[in-house]
Amino acid sequence: MSGIQKEDLEQVFEQNLDVYIDDWKRLLEFASVGTIPEHDQDCVDCADWLMRRLGKIGFQSEILRTDTKPCVFAERKGDPKHPVVLFYGHYDVQPADPVDKWDSPPFEPSLRNGRMYARGAEDNKGQVLFVIEALEALVQQDALNATVKVILEGEEESGSKGISASLPEWRDKLAADILMVCDTGTVRSGAPTIIMGLRGIIFLSVHLMGPDHDLHSGVHGGVAPNPAQGVAELIASLHNADGGVAVPGFYDGVQPPSESERVLANSVPFDEESYLKDTGVEPVAGEQRYTQTERIGFRPTIDINGVNSGYSGEGAKTIIPSSATAKLSARLVPGQDPSDALDAIIDHLEAQVPAGLELEVTDTEVAGPGFRLDFDSALVNRAKLVLDQLSDQNTALLWEGASIPVVSALAEASGAEPLLVGFGREEDRIHAVNESFSIEQFRDGFLYAALFLASL
Amino acid sequence: MSGIQKEDLEQVFEQNLDVYIDDWKRLLEFASVGTIPEHDQDCVDCADWLMRRLGKIGFQSEILRTDTKPCVFAERKGDPKHPVVLFYGHYDVQPADPVDKWDSPPFEPSLRNGRMYARGAEDNKGQVLFVIEALEALVQQDALNATVKVILEGEEESGSKGISASLPEWRDKLAADILMVCDTGTVRSGAPTIIMGLRGIIFLSVHLMGPDHDLHSGVHGGVAPNPAQGVAELIASLHNADGGVAVPGFYDGVQPPSESERVLANSVPFDEESYLKDTGVEPVAGEQRYTQTERIGFRPTIDINGVNSGYSGEGAKTIIPSSATAKLSARLVPGQDPSDALDAIIDHLEAQVPAGLELEVTDTEVAGPGFRLDFDSALVNRAKLVLDQLSDQNTALLWEGASIPVVSALAEASGAEPLLVGFGREEDRIHAVNESFSIEQFRDGFLYAALFLASL
Repeated sequence: MSGIQKEDLEQVFEQNLDVYIDDWKRLLEFASVGTIPEHDQDCVDCADWLMRRLGKIGFQSEILRTDTKPCVFAERKGDPKHPVVLFYGHYDVQPADPVDKWDSPPFEPSLRNGRMYARGAEDNKGQVLFVIEALEALVQQDALNATVKVILEGEEESGSKGISASLPEWRDKLAADILMVCDTGTVRSGAPTIIMGLRGIIFLSVHLMGPDHDLHSGVHGGVAPNPAQGVAELIASLHNADGGVAVPGFYDGVQPPSESERVLANSVPFDEESYLKDTGVEPVAGEQRYTQTERIGFRPTIDINGVNSGYSGEGAKTIIPSSATAKLSARLVPGQDPSDALDAIIDHLEAQVPAGLELEVTDTEVAGPGFRLDFDSALVNRAKLVLDQLSDQNTALLWEGASIPVVSALAEASGAEPLLVGFGREEDRIHAVNESFSIEQFRDGFLYAALFLASL
Repeated sequence: MSGIQKEDLEQVFEQNLDVYIDDWKRLLEFASVGTIPEHDQDCVDCADWLMRRLGKIGFQSEILRTDTKPCVFAERKGDPKHPVVLFYGHYDVQPADPVDKWDSPPFEPSLRNGRMYARGAEDNKGQVLFVIEALEALVQQDALNATVKVILEGEEESGSKGISASLPEWRDKLAADILMVCDTGTVRSGAPTIIMGLRGIIFLSVHLMGPDHDLHSGVHGGVAPNPAQGVAELIASLHNADGGVAVPGFYDGVQPPSESERVLANSVPFDEESYLKDTGVEPVAGEQRYTQTERIGFRPTIDINGVNSGYSGEGAKTIIPSSATAKLSARLVPGQDPSDALDAIIDHLEAQVPAGLELEVTDTEVAGPGFRLDFDSALVNRAKLVLDQLSDQNTALLWEGASIPVVSALAEASGAEPLLVGFGREEDRIHAVNESFSIEQFRDGFLYAALFLASL
């Protein structure tokens, strides 16, 4: 282990906090919403800023073009005797709407009561930035021995298309031993958490076309096919009454957890009370024959992200709408082939289209498969030692339900073993209005990243 | 019959057409959307304009206040030996959204190729105005013998609340023999049409509340109840696979048509080909064991006017939405009690709420029951004689599916027999974007109204 101690790093953090906050705010001002074309330039500008920021701390940095959004790549060569680390993150953020429900504008970062409020404050800009600040601190303290590579993409929230397509030609550039990712959260208690698995994800948009214009519901009610009713019937057909997915073939190949994974995952009971407090709902949906922890960690789902048809303004408008749209995503687990799962959903929808309506499926995206790690590995144990220094609580191992679609592909292309440790919490409200991340969480991330990288 | 002839009236129409068009445009410029509070003043201004317009042609006119929107009332006393006519219409219009899909702005009337384009061009401003112009023509020609009363309301599109509540105190004022309404359309062939029945209507908005903020679909997918999925399941539960309504008690009391009504209604086959051409869909929805004509004229329906939840922008947003809303209306037939039907729907929804979600029903509106007229009456025969002068085609008797909720209540309060003749056509696209009404239709309406009123 290197000589740098936790106390030294805490001092560096205190001394530089104002600079870190300025950097953080600057990074959050880029409205780098990856899925909305009008924000394309914001994504380019954000990538440029990160490239220059990494250059300033002594990394060789560059923009790697892809067919879609640019990636940032940076490298600082170290002693070849040490393992090579590839740090992966993303600079794209979720859309910020409904914008008018934010307490402060989503792209005007606001620091209030020790929390930074902005879209991306946590996911993933906050958790990328604490790694960059930790790298700078180590370089300045001459405490970074290992070669470190950084790859930051701009399409994590929408399927990582550009980076995925480029991976075959970047294999040498990205070759590493450890794939470090800070894009996850802790368990509910706040104990430091190593992610042992992530779900994969696929996307699709479902459109039902009916009349070529909205029809009067009196003149036509009873004979005209109604897309709003049709899309509801399509959505309802996706699940059984027991909470399971009703799509034939969807569960094909699902790998159940080993008995020891299952026992370990369930060793901390799911805290229904604090779940209700954090979210406002009881965790009662989904497959009732699995525990909540198993449903999230080991079972695939189909999630309705949105549905829209017809009139939604004030008062009444007595129409039969001309069309309807639903946005769906599915979380996948190891063993499921993402393309096959997508095909199964589309086949099912096609078989269910109500008479007189036309189905169109667009925006299909096979982002990546689910995966699970070996919980006995040396890397997991090393991370545990570092995390044990940050908290009085035991480090938790968590099979998470979220997805970082490209992690499997990056691990394969780089030859590296993934290590996923992040400091997100439910109260951060990622993907929702008023996303935030606290200085305390940022500090924990900084200390973890610095101590882990210094330990190599 | 009075001495005035169709040819005289045609000449009056030609001479005054420019004035009629100016009036029509002025009337359409009022954005009198009854259901949107920001248009309240437009409704007041529109009512004032109509009141003054009726005053100018020799009617005693006034504004009648209600608890909600004002009504316009006007009267011109005639020879007491003649029957008293009460003409009913409405100045409120449907919302105009999506405004950006109109070829010309909805409240900037545009006359193109002999058609007036604007929200309300037909429904109901166009069909109210041809009656007013016909009244003026008759007064000027000294050809109006009967007492004529006019009542125009501002809430027809949303349940006629104000006028309905005021009817008990207006009984004397509205007392009449004939309740004349021009708010309907012709059969598909364009033959002059007398409406023999209308459906009633009730409204409700359905809200499902889930998480107190949008949740990340990865972290929560599999345990958090999803309002978008829930609202789809609620909507889907409203109908059976055979197209019928699945709500227990909804059909209670439904009066089937008499055998002669059924035969007469089906005597003109439903024109599936031109239906497809006009609407872009085949008329294949609804209860398969009834003909399309029967489904529209004699059977009640539940119609989904809109559904909205979660993300509907470009790209993907992987959330479990915090809430969902659906807007529903139901068309009712004679024998159904509107309040009972509404209760049946709410009871059904309450019994179906998915676990973990909360249901709220708002904007309930019991607008009015359905009704059917006697097709052998002297009034129907008199109207037929007038209409036969306007066309080479035989006058059609039609059991229509639309609703003019207040007609039953007005008929009861005034003691008058309803007569519903209008000149709408499918191509007018009422309630949709690019609503329009042709000068030719306006002229037919003018001639009918003038000849009918002169015939009394």
